[in-house]
Amino acid sequence: MIPYKTIITLDRKSCTPVYIQLCNQVIQLIKCGILPPSTKLPGSRWMADTLQVHRKTVVAAYDELMAQDWIEVRPAKGTFVNSSLPIVEQQPIPGTEAAEKAKMRKQSPGFAFIRREHLNARDTEFPKEGILGLDDGVPDTRIAPIEEIARVYRNIVKKSYNRKHLSYGSIYGNMELREALADYLNDTRGLSTEPENILITRGSQMGIYLSARLLLEQGENIVVGETNYRSANKAFTEAGGTLNRVRVDANGIRTDDVETLCRKRKIRAVYVTSHHHHPTTVTLSAHRRMHLLELSQKYGFAIIEDDYDYDFHYCNAPILPLASSDSGGNVIYIGALCKIVAPGIRVGYLVAPKAFTDEAALMRRVIDRQGDQLLELTLARMIREGEIQRHSKKALKIYHARRDLFCSLLKERLGEYFEFRKPEGGMAVWVKLREGYDWDEVKAEARKNKLKLGGYCGDEDDTIDNPYPGLRMGFASLTLDEIKEAMDRLETTMTSLEQKVKSYA
Amino acid sequence: MIPYKTIITLDRKSCTPVYIQLCNQVIQLIKCGILPPSTKLPGSRWMADTLQVHRKTVVAAYDELMAQDWIEVRPAKGTFVNSSLPIVEQQPIPGTEAAEKAKMRKQSPGFAFIRREHLNARDTEFPKEGILGLDDGVPDTRIAPIEEIARVYRNIVKKSYNRKHLSYGSIYGNMELREALADYLNDTRGLSTEPENILITRGSQMGIYLSARLLLEQGENIVVGETNYRSANKAFTEAGGTLNRVRVDANGIRTDDVETLCRKRKIRAVYVTSHHHHPTTVTLSAHRRMHLLELSQKYGFAIIEDDYDYDFHYCNAPILPLASSDSGGNVIYIGALCKIVAPGIRVGYLVAPKAFTDEAALMRRVIDRQGDQLLELTLARMIREGEIQRHSKKALKIYHARRDLFCSLLKERLGEYFEFRKPEGGMAVWVKLREGYDWDEVKAEARKNKLKLGGYCGDEDDTIDNPYPGLRMGFASLTLDEIKEAMDRLETTMTSLEQKVKSYA
Repeated sequence: MIPYKTIITLDRKSCTPVYIQLCNQVIQLIKCGILPPSTKLPGSRWMADTLQVHRKTVVAAYDELMAQDWIEVRPAKGTFVNSSLPIVEQQPIPGTEAAEKAKMRKQSPGFAFIRREHLNARDTEFPKEGILGLDDGVPDTRIAPIEEIARVYRNIVKKSYNRKHLSYGSIYGNMELREALADYLNDTRGLSTEPENILITRGSQMGIYLSARLLLEQGENIVVGETNYRSANKAFTEAGGTLNRVRVDANGIRTDDVETLCRKRKIRAVYVTSHHHHPTTVTLSAHRRMHLLELSQKYGFAIIEDDYDYDFHYCNAPILPLASSDSGGNVIYIGALCKIVAPGIRVGYLVAPKAFTDEAALMRRVIDRQGDQLLELTLARMIREGEIQRHSKKALKIYHARRDLFCSLLKERLGEYFEFRKPEGGMAVWVKLREGYDWDEVKAEARKNKLKLGGYCGDEDDTIDNPYPGLRMGFASLTLDEIKEAMDRLETTMTSLEQKVKSYA
Repeated sequence: MIPYKTIITLDRKSCTPVYIQLCNQVIQLIKCGILPPSTKLPGSRWMADTLQVHRKTVVAAYDELMAQDWIEVRPAKGTFVNSSLPIVEQQPIPGTEAAEKAKMRKQSPGFAFIRREHLNARDTEFPKEGILGLDDGVPDTRIAPIEEIARVYRNIVKKSYNRKHLSYGSIYGNMELREALADYLNDTRGLSTEPENILITRGSQMGIYLSARLLLEQGENIVVGETNYRSANKAFTEAGGTLNRVRVDANGIRTDDVETLCRKRKIRAVYVTSHHHHPTTVTLSAHRRMHLLELSQKYGFAIIEDDYDYDFHYCNAPILPLASSDSGGNVIYIGALCKIVAPGIRVGYLVAPKAFTDEAALMRRVIDRQGDQLLELTLARMIREGEIQRHSKKALKIYHARRDLFCSLLKERLGEYFEFRKPEGGMAVWVKLREGYDWDEVKAEARKNKLKLGGYCGDEDDTIDNPYPGLRMGFASLTLDEIKEAMDRLETTMTSLEQKVKSYA
């Protein structure tokens, strides 16, 4: 007989009843071959004594095992493991060393199907206490209107007629939000769109992914800048597309490069962050915007316009998106409330000709069915009441001051090490390192000074010639005092690096 | 000169400043070719008079246009549209009939890239006032603990240290929730999993989609039941997989069919809703569970176990999932809190060997970056405090009574029309229609009686031989009184249909 007392452990404090625990453990023993088909089980009295439980508990467990077809009673003979079950190779008894080894094996899958090496990426960690981070350019969550959101959300759920939004809803997203966004986008971005053109997504990333999957078949061509927003590149390659890189200069992506490519091969789509190119922060010029629209008509490609930070422009009024002057229905306009509200509030939108929006909605259904309709309703109300707009203006003012301080300090105190152009908008500065220094060294030295340089600085697979053309330094998430402190640490970093360089010379 | 007064309309009540409105409208005129390159613009004084605005407004607009490179000043000559802009074909002036026609054209995209016909699906509509719906088997949102969620959520956001969860967080999901779920799943489902094996998803659907994309390349084989949960089928075909259908009987999918298929071709994965097969509600028998695990080891396929309604089992204790006895690391276990909490609260999980979970997290990053970490944290706290478990037990009791009433009334009053087996769990009954009737007719007649039969009843492309084998009738979302009322309406429906049939005979 197998050592039931050793193998079966019952936890009387668990919220799972003891008889269910016993039943489940016997099932495990059957499944792993320790109790093969036709094995006789001990009588309930013996089992109860051995495990120190009431006999009724054992009887209940055996009843359960019978109901589930694991065991069978043979009249006058006793209780047996169901003889019709398949015989399996015996596995080690749980808790033994052999079992531990088997558990280790479980860490790697039996099916060697993993084939997505190109998806490599690091996970995000919250910065540790005392560390200041210059991030990729993300909003300051400390000013996010989250308490307002929680308040409106709670008021909405208090109304019983809003309960319907807890069920399955439209795959296009909440209608009130689509209506509010249509008005908001038409008003602020010069679009002339209708709610039916809008699909609510989870942040911009889902809009990019959906567009990629709908536009690109295996091996089809998409044009992106060199360098380009990495998560967009990953969406395109994941969808099977081939990246065609064009140069980016002070006026954005080179549309003459796009034209050259169009003459050579069939281009399905061009991806552009027209307002502030990621990572270099430059704005696509008026001339190139028109040229790109013209090319899209001529060569029949779609433009994926990712306008992720339209609302943050400090110098003049923001330039209207390409989508505002798209007469051919070629532009898919993607944006999100993540930068205005907070990255964690993942609500975005995709605006396109209705036929495309319809397809995107069907594709979205397959991915995650629908968004969080109560949150969407909450944001719709906040747009209608002007709260999002008020917050956006407030944030713009705060980030404007932060940009100015950041850039002036960076120039005054660190101009000998870094080259950069003050960005007209966005939340980060694209900083190039002068000759003789190396970003990896700078990052390592900065870490010693409790400064984390966490922004995008190019990937080997993202660039053609120069592997580390620059580094994004986000200014928006730091207060003015924190910016000063960060600059102190950066200065200390560069000074000690300079001394090292000199001592080697 | 073009009719500026007619074309340009300024809205003084808009939250966009008037000078920006003017600027943007001039840009539109340039972009659509009405103001070609080198066109002279009217002087600011004339423009101010014509549009009845202050001259400073016009000057500000012109400054803005200059800053954005749309216009240029030629000394002593005046202000001109930038001569370096490309010439575009003139488009109709907005507001005219020609413009309306052009707008119509915009409804259909210029790029004819839409190629996802297989994604066809209807959108969901909330039932209208006075209509009773027998749905596919969804929870009753009226008992959802949403006020509790809103309360906990609000308490969380009040703490300033929780603000970090508003920023970009882990692509695996909130760690507290992964930890709480590991304990919860180990306790309730007999798994032996760790937080590192768990990826938080948006509902089960995202787990299915991620698995499909990771496991299947174009044309690779996946086995599903006949019939099967439609949204899962769509995820598999969308990923490029080929569906191989096996028969489903009273004991779930036929694993001997799976074995026959494995002998014929390489099978990558088998999808199974082991606890209550969708749509037929049957439970996969103990024998077949073991057989399937054995086959998966022998032929090296992955098992995607979608255990979407594990918590709702009324007769005996729920059978432990396949994942609980998977020693080879072949099972990907998918579930969600959507059925326990509410479909609109889209938080689910994927549990798999770490290597697979890691890949799924990277893929998920490409799709929508991350989940709603504050909501995830909220649910983690509610699991830790036992609130989810308490709600789950309460709901189980309510649905148990609803199932019993629904099935007894359906048998007593409508047994002559319908065949069904009382389901052991889940939220719906799989109802077959007796000879001589047709689901389309029944649905149409029911609609006249304000009864919507909205459950799954098979699709032509979902089934091999019988296009309408049955219809799912959800009982969980109706109160006992509503169930009685629905049965009255269903009886009226069938009686009048019967009379029609007789009058034809």
